Amino acid sequence: MEQKELKELLDRVSSGEVSAEDAFHRMKMEPFDDLGFAKVDHHRAIRQGAAEVIYGAGKTPEQIEGIVRNMQERGQKRILITRLSKETAAWLQERLPLRYEALPRIGILGQMPEPDGIGTLVVATGGTSDIPVAEEAALTAEIHGNRVIRLYDVGVAGLHRLLAHREEIMSAEVIVAIAGMEGALASVIGGLADCPVIAVPTSIGYGASFGGVSALLSMLNSCASGVSVVNIDNGFGAGYLASMINHRRL
Amino acid sequence: MEQKELKELLDRVSSGEVSAEDAFHRMKMEPFDDLGFAKVDHHRAIRQGAAEVIYGAGKTPEQIEGIVRNMQERGQKRILITRLSKETAAWLQERLPLRYEALPRIGILGQMPEPDGIGTLVVATGGTSDIPVAEEAALTAEIHGNRVIRLYDVGVAGLHRLLAHREEIMSAEVIVAIAGMEGALASVIGGLADCPVIAVPTSIGYGASFGGVSALLSMLNSCASGVSVVNIDNGFGAGYLASMINHRRL
Amino acid sequence: MEQKELKELLDRVSSGEVSAEDAFHRMKMEPFDDLGFAKVDHHRAIRQGAAEVIYGAGKTPEQIEGIVRNMQERGQKRILITRLSKETAAWLQERLPLRYEALPRIGILGQMPEPDGIGTLVVATGGTSDIPVAEEAALTAEIHGNRVIRLYDVGVAGLHRLLAHREEIMSAEVIVAIAGMEGALASVIGGLADCPVIAVPTSIGYGASFGGVSALLSMLNSCASGVSVVNIDNGFGAGYLASMINHRRL
Amino acid sequence: MEQKELKELLDRVSSGEVSAEDAFHRMKMEPFDDLGFAKVDHHRAIRQGAAEVIYGAGKTPEQIEGIVRNMQERGQKRILITRLSKETAAWLQERLPLRYEALPRIGILGQMPEPDGIGTLVVATGGTSDIPVAEEAALTAEIHGNRVIRLYDVGVAGLHRLLAHREEIMSAEVIVAIAGMEGALASVIGGLADCPVIAVPTSIGYGASFGGVSALLSMLNSCASGVSVVNIDNGFGAGYLASMINHRRL
Amino acid sequence: MEQKELKELLDRVSSGEVSAEDAFHRMKMEPFDDLGFAKVDHHRAIRQGAAEVIYGAGKTPEQIEGIVRNMQERGQKRILITRLSKETAAWLQERLPLRYEALPRIGILGQMPEPDGIGTLVVATGGTSDIPVAEEAALTAEIHGNRVIRLYDVGVAGLHRLLAHREEIMSAEVIVAIAGMEGALASVIGGLADCPVIAVPTSIGYGASFGGVSALLSMLNSCASGVSVVNIDNGFGAGYLASMINHRRL
Amino acid sequence: MEQKELKELLDRVSSGEVSAEDAFHRMKMEPFDDLGFAKVDHHRAIRQGAAEVIYGAGKTPEQIEGIVRNMQERGQKRILITRLSKETAAWLQERLPLRYEALPRIGILGQMPEPDGIGTLVVATGGTSDIPVAEEAALTAEIHGNRVIRLYDVGVAGLHRLLAHREEIMSAEVIVAIAGMEGALASVIGGLADCPVIAVPTSIGYGASFGGVSALLSMLNSCASGVSVVNIDNGFGAGYLASMINHRRL
Amino acid sequence: MEQKELKELLDRVSSGEVSAEDAFHRMKMEPFDDLGFAKVDHHRAIRQGAAEVIYGAGKTPEQIEGIVRNMQERGQKRILITRLSKETAAWLQERLPLRYEALPRIGILGQMPEPDGIGTLVVATGGTSDIPVAEEAALTAEIHGNRVIRLYDVGVAGLHRLLAHREEIMSAEVIVAIAGMEGALASVIGGLADCPVIAVPTSIGYGASFGGVSALLSMLNSCASGVSVVNIDNGFGAGYLASMINHRRL
Amino acid sequence: MEQKELKELLDRVSSGEVSAEDAFHRMKMEPFDDLGFAKVDHHRAIRQGAAEVIYGAGKTPEQIEGIVRNMQERGQKRILITRLSKETAAWLQERLPLRYEALPRIGILGQMPEPDGIGTLVVATGGTSDIPVAEEAALTAEIHGNRVIRLYDVGVAGLHRLLAHREEIMSAEVIVAIAGMEGALASVIGGLADCPVIAVPTSIGYGASFGGVSALLSMLNSCASGVSVVNIDNGFGAGYLASMINHRRL
Repeated sequence: MEQKELKELLDRVSSGEVSAEDAFHRMKMEPFDDLGFAKVDHHRAIRQGAAEVIYGAGKTPEQIEGIVRNMQERGQKRILITRLSKETAAWLQERLPLRYEALPRIGILGQMPEPDGIGTLVVATGGTSDIPVAEEAALTAEIHGNRVIRLYDVGVAGLHRLLAHREEIMSAEVIVAIAGMEGALASVIGGLADCPVIAVPTSIGYGASFGGVSALLSMLNSCASGVSVVNIDNGFGAGYLASMINHRRL
Repeated sequence: MEQKELKELLDRVSSGEVSAEDAFHRMKMEPFDDLGFAKVDHHRAIRQGAAEVIYGAGKTPEQIEGIVRNMQERGQKRILITRLSKETAAWLQERLPLRYEALPRIGILGQMPEPDGIGTLVVATGGTSDIPVAEEAALTAEIHGNRVIRLYDVGVAGLHRLLAHREEIMSAEVIVAIAGMEGALASVIGGLADCPVIAVPTSIGYGASFGGVSALLSMLNSCASGVSVVNIDNGFGAGYLASMINHRRL
Repeated sequence: MEQKELKELLDRVSSGEVSAEDAFHRMKMEPFDDLGFAKVDHHRAIRQGAAEVIYGAGKTPEQIEGIVRNMQERGQKRILITRLSKETAAWLQERLPLRYEALPRIGILGQMPEPDGIGTLVVATGGTSDIPVAEEAALTAEIHGNRVIRLYDVGVAGLHRLLAHREEIMSAEVIVAIAGMEGALASVIGGLADCPVIAVPTSIGYGASFGGVSALLSMLNSCASGVSVVNIDNGFGAGYLASMINHRRL
Repeated sequence: MEQKELKELLDRVSSGEVSAEDAFHRMKMEPFDDLGFAKVDHHRAIRQGAAEVIYGAGKTPEQIEGIVRNMQERGQKRILITRLSKETAAWLQERLPLRYEALPRIGILGQMPEPDGIGTLVVATGGTSDIPVAEEAALTAEIHGNRVIRLYDVGVAGLHRLLAHREEIMSAEVIVAIAGMEGALASVIGGLADCPVIAVPTSIGYGASFGGVSALLSMLNSCASGVSVVNIDNGFGAGYLASMINHRRL
Repeated sequence: MEQKELKELLDRVSSGEVSAEDAFHRMKMEPFDDLGFAKVDHHRAIRQGAAEVIYGAGKTPEQIEGIVRNMQERGQKRILITRLSKETAAWLQERLPLRYEALPRIGILGQMPEPDGIGTLVVATGGTSDIPVAEEAALTAEIHGNRVIRLYDVGVAGLHRLLAHREEIMSAEVIVAIAGMEGALASVIGGLADCPVIAVPTSIGYGASFGGVSALLSMLNSCASGVSVVNIDNGFGAGYLASMINHRRL
Repeated sequence: MEQKELKELLDRVSSGEVSAEDAFHRMKMEPFDDLGFAKVDHHRAIRQGAAEVIYGAGKTPEQIEGIVRNMQERGQKRILITRLSKETAAWLQERLPLRYEALPRIGILGQMPEPDGIGTLVVATGGTSDIPVAEEAALTAEIHGNRVIRLYDVGVAGLHRLLAHREEIMSAEVIVAIAGMEGALASVIGGLADCPVIAVPTSIGYGASFGGVSALLSMLNSCASGVSVVNIDNGFGAGYLASMINHRRL
Repeated sequence: MEQKELKELLDRVSSGEVSAEDAFHRMKMEPFDDLGFAKVDHHRAIRQGAAEVIYGAGKTPEQIEGIVRNMQERGQKRILITRLSKETAAWLQERLPLRYEALPRIGILGQMPEPDGIGTLVVATGGTSDIPVAEEAALTAEIHGNRVIRLYDVGVAGLHRLLAHREEIMSAEVIVAIAGMEGALASVIGGLADCPVIAVPTSIGYGASFGGVSALLSMLNSCASGVSVVNIDNGFGAGYLASMINHRRL
Repeated sequence: MEQKELKELLDRVSSGEVSAEDAFHRMKMEPFDDLGFAKVDHHRAIRQGAAEVIYGAGKTPEQIEGIVRNMQERGQKRILITRLSKETAAWLQERLPLRYEALPRIGILGQMPEPDGIGTLVVATGGTSDIPVAEEAALTAEIHGNRVIRLYDVGVAGLHRLLAHREEIMSAEVIVAIAGMEGALASVIGGLADCPVIAVPTSIGYGASFGGVSALLSMLNSCASGVSVVNIDNGFGAGYLASMINHRRL
């Protein structure tokens, strides 16, 4: 309940339309359903535009099904399930019309919407192995109504592969730059582009890559302006934020 | 030189307007002045809108003056110098009409512009000690044409202080959330707002804050959507990125 | 043997009731049974109230059974076995009337006691995935005679879910705040409550959560007063300490 | 404003005693004074019993004086200022009747209260160099109404020094165990005592003590039950929490 | 396209031999084949001499086969596939005349060339367990045309085993020093030799070897001159660089 | 070849007994057998008393058998194989009269010798889970001719269990103190004993024990004198060093 | 009070020679003087042979003087003060006949004793900068009655410098190997010698030496047998332990 | 003494030219002067070409002068002193004809030689603040006889600044790539060049650059082939190694 609603409610109490007792309970009423193991947030859709996402890791198939059904009862048309294992996806597909993308381990319920963002997003990766994280970002952006251009395997060790796509980079609204190992892609793209760059370090690499720490530090220390960073392998977070920027109220 | 210019140049070579020799040299001509110790980037203003910023740390007073004068000769009206020590600022003020903000250690040449962004930026801090970083962010945003609301000392340990400003948070275009110690501010604001939140960990704290690492990790692991992170104490980076989002081309 | 007993023993030696030889042996007698692989502590129950707990990890089924039987011979009525694998539990259930809770991997022998603590404990988690650690804390507290309120999935990114339970938080005697990822829950609860808050970081998360390190650092740096921290995933330690505070001698 | 007050307020709006407009403003009224650089929390005294503490680090003398005077105007009788430099203390002493303890760098305004806790607190240190942190804990506890026994330089490398004080340890209500280097004191005391032990790692040590990290890890991994940990050198936090436990409502 | 080609192309546009349109497209033509999941680099062979290497980790058998066939179509005679699992190798061997070395997990297509380097390379290891990494280095060097002497199990704890091969060490053109655990081999060889030493830390060890970090730090801190370091277990990188030094243009 | 032998050899060259050519080759002759994958050190037995130990990890069954047979041909009577997997042990037992200890994963060839050290060694552990490492230490010491007293599960959280064995501790020649988690055992024993204490951190623990790092740091920072540390889980190293001290030449 | 004394005391209580009251007090009597800020340990000299050492860091001049005088009253003839600043040393020299060694920052009261150890100790360093730590070790050993050979600047990058002293190394009773940077000295000496080697990492180095961490890890991972490690820069600990080994009871 | 000399010496012993006694002493004669605090290596010049370098950090002015004079007596014409403080340089300049470069803190005795390497070295930096490290590399290379091209401030965030110098990069014999912050320069140059690239991370940066660790990890994880890494800020090591590669025997 926001400020305005609060004021209106108080006016109605003052005018006798609503009793103090009712108002009290209404002010306490929570904008979520309590399933015991999870509190499903329904106001969030309005408040933040993200209600339709379920983080699948660490949840049982039954819990995920329960949350999906609760969301559908409340009217959700599109639901995105991230970090969804193949096994759980198969279990769900017997019960729900779920589309499953194996590479990024994403489940989708409902149809993809038409793109309605301001411009075009670019999702770029340093290597082939970064593609699963990139697809998590791209699909997240697409289900939130964005047009996405994929530029995969354009790492800085072969600069011409990246420069060949300078045009897409220059005209993007937001760029998601995804790389493991030394993570230099974000800096180079940040230097070429004049739009926000969301850097996603990946856990791709070995030895002193320390599961993505090397790429993470590299991206945090980027000397290019306009670059910010999300957690290692957090394709969803990058795609969601990119969509948010691409849908700014005007 | 971008694609379009290249195409035009080739057309003019083809039509004989420009000789191959001239075209060759023009294509090699670099968009920067080489001062020996620094390569001052002039095309960057157009390409990325950031030409007027000098990172003051690790540069001598003479080097900074040299870069400023070179920029001014090229027509820059507003120049922001970050990480500028009091001593160097005093030295520069004898030579240049520099305004110096001691707390965020920022020097400014030229007038602040009128705000021309889409909406309003909020710069919030967890504590009083985070204010220098916050001012670096706020002044950076203001010199790039943004209206900024400052919400200082609204840390999560006294939640009512933050909730008292829920309205500003709900209506912001972009929020810069700045905190040291446990860095929880970004998550809480991220949960309240429905706009991009740029999290800035600060080196404020002691013991296991490890110079900002605790806040940095906290922010990278934020379970709120729409949050991204910049380097520890990087107020400039956050302010610059916030401005970029607030000025998207339409 | 404490000071008072020592004094009494010496008095009895002095008066001839007890021979020096006997006193010497009695003073050397150890308050534990030595099973070879383990020294089962029987005085500890009196001394510290914790005798009935067996840390199951790294012990063979036979070792655990041996310790249980030794405890039972010495009169223990209630025994809690933590970190007990499903396989070992099954093995033990063929031999002992063991109740097994699969989620927190806890085995219980004997009946749960009536709550006899000063007040009520609250066990809160940031997410659904933190529930196993929370149940370890809650069951540990319950077997030590505490009434426990469970508040699960009340993470700070959806603050209203937590604020809906402000009453329970305000009236708790001790609160156990359990969270992975950015671990901000402890700070926010610490700011709302006026009772001791025991923070438990969990290993839930990915990437830069580093197996719970991010949450751990966040909690150690909490700017809320009254917050202390136990080891990552240490639900038992938190439940035990909460019970200790809730049973202070009057 | 708590639940009960809210209900009463709504009753009075319903009965016409209070207008909706007034109620709206009252519900928005914040329980703190906004000094610009700091939001001084006045309800906190009632809500959490800690209002009288100012964290001195990173604040200017003027800011501290401002906060003190604001607190005094609101009726605070006792104010504790932690992490207060000698210089700032001297500056304040020209303006305020401040008592300054140089070792723990603490300033005190007002008289120490009579102890009114349930029992006695023990503050123990491993070595002589840990005393400043210990005094921060002890003075914090004393200003909050606790009787404190100090046991300094009882590190585990000379166990007899600690065992000589077994009686104080056995009869304490809460123990604050403070140690740098290997931090084993907390475990040994935790094994001897049957009350909560708050462990404070200190930055005392060299080489692989890593500024307190070694002691911190040691304490987090304590195999004794009833031990929890606060941040490195956080004497205040330990003293405050100890007082909270020693004043549990009965 | 290098400088010279660019100049020639412009000359031909100027003379009308080539139209502006054609030149524009040719300048945009990328020196790689885009397979969707990977951009296979064909100019790289000329530009950097490394085109024939495929990093096998994180690629599906189908992707590897696709890249191999694309390379072969473009005329590659020798292809080295590193980090190739036994399973993928078996799958490929049904389709391609692949030779597989199980220890270093390397696949080779085509014949080994005659050595044509300046001198001889030495590949030395501290222990038996370092041999897989050593073979990755040695085979990489051999497929690039180098003569390689293998000195295995010559760790510094038995110095005479190393000193017995002083002659090979003194006469090498480049030495690859491979060791896990304390990684001292690089320093000792660096002190004996007067040629470049490429140090490869391995993940061999346990406990405080931290997966190769101990060896890595040891090698970075080598007080012998002429030592540089590559990533943990990066036998390929060391072999490739050694070959590059051994084939300097004259 | 040591100094004395060198001098004698030169005398014999000088007197014509040995030709320069022969001397040269003899001086180059290595005191080890080169098996290709390993250089088996035979002089080491004399030089350092450790020839009979094979580090089993990372060696194939065939390699271990090869080394054993080579050692036996050279006259070794007792061979200790550490870190030997159950599978490899079974394979070897079909070929060699190997005794296998499953807990410490140790294989033994030949009879245990009579103890011939100066005094008695004590091997103590903090918990039951540390026993495998302790047995590696104890068996290593026993095969090198030491009498060993085992004190298991005497962790500092139940100090009386340790103090019950004060006599053994006081009369030991060397003590090996083995503990995971907080690793305080080494400090407490170091304070009680007046002989060298070799501390072995173990990887036992969870969360912030970081695979033994917590115990390692604790032991390195021990404030007790006479304590030194070996690698995490390095029972062999501790047992070997203890034996070396217990056999000092007098 | 040890077992034997306890038995005798009880016999005397039993026989009436000593009253129970007296025995009680005697058993409680502590073997240290409590100076308030420090508990000076007098039994320790007998119990552990180390009573005469004061760790100077973090103590005021007055505290050190107090401890020295207390020790002297109790009959101590030789006192070693480590980590003693030049300023405090000067202050003490006005009051006490203190000899001060500036390089290792050590103060000595009383005469050096005649060497009475079993054999000779060797103290070796990798470089010139390690000498202060080495002198702390050497002087500690000398004041405890050991003959010490110093081998400075014999780092492994110039192996011949070390091998030139092979004879001293081969005939040492104990060796203290001190090195910063890559810390390889301990492994190489450990491979050459057949006596215990105590490795001391130093904080000498820069960059990735991380204040001694690189050398510390290197030494912990030494593949030479008979090597154990003390804390970074802990020359005292190494010298004390070396003396302890060199003075084993026979 | 190398193999050949040893053989000759033995021949001369065999022939009676040299007595066994003399040969023995000669074989023991060390190729260094022992100054007590340092062992100055004279054979090293021949053996490794590096004799003329003194690492100035941690040495007193007197020690440095002593080493210089000893080198000069042995015939050294050119001496390079690295990490030389301004104060020590001034002290030395009163005694020796020393040239001092303040930025890289280098002292030089003797004349720079004519370049005699195979090709040209390139020393490139990411920013202005990296210049001191770059000059240490460049001067080291120049004093060893190399021609050096300096490319400063060509960081990847402004790629055109680097691409403007593609020709120098393509034609270099060896490249030293120096960068702090995210350290991406090495990867980008490694991708452009076809010669060995020696990467030097610098400690330039703030926050999560962790004193050069971010750049170090980035460079170790470079996905470009031909890149190896030296210690943070180790300009000397890079310059020395570059010279070694540029002077390979042909």
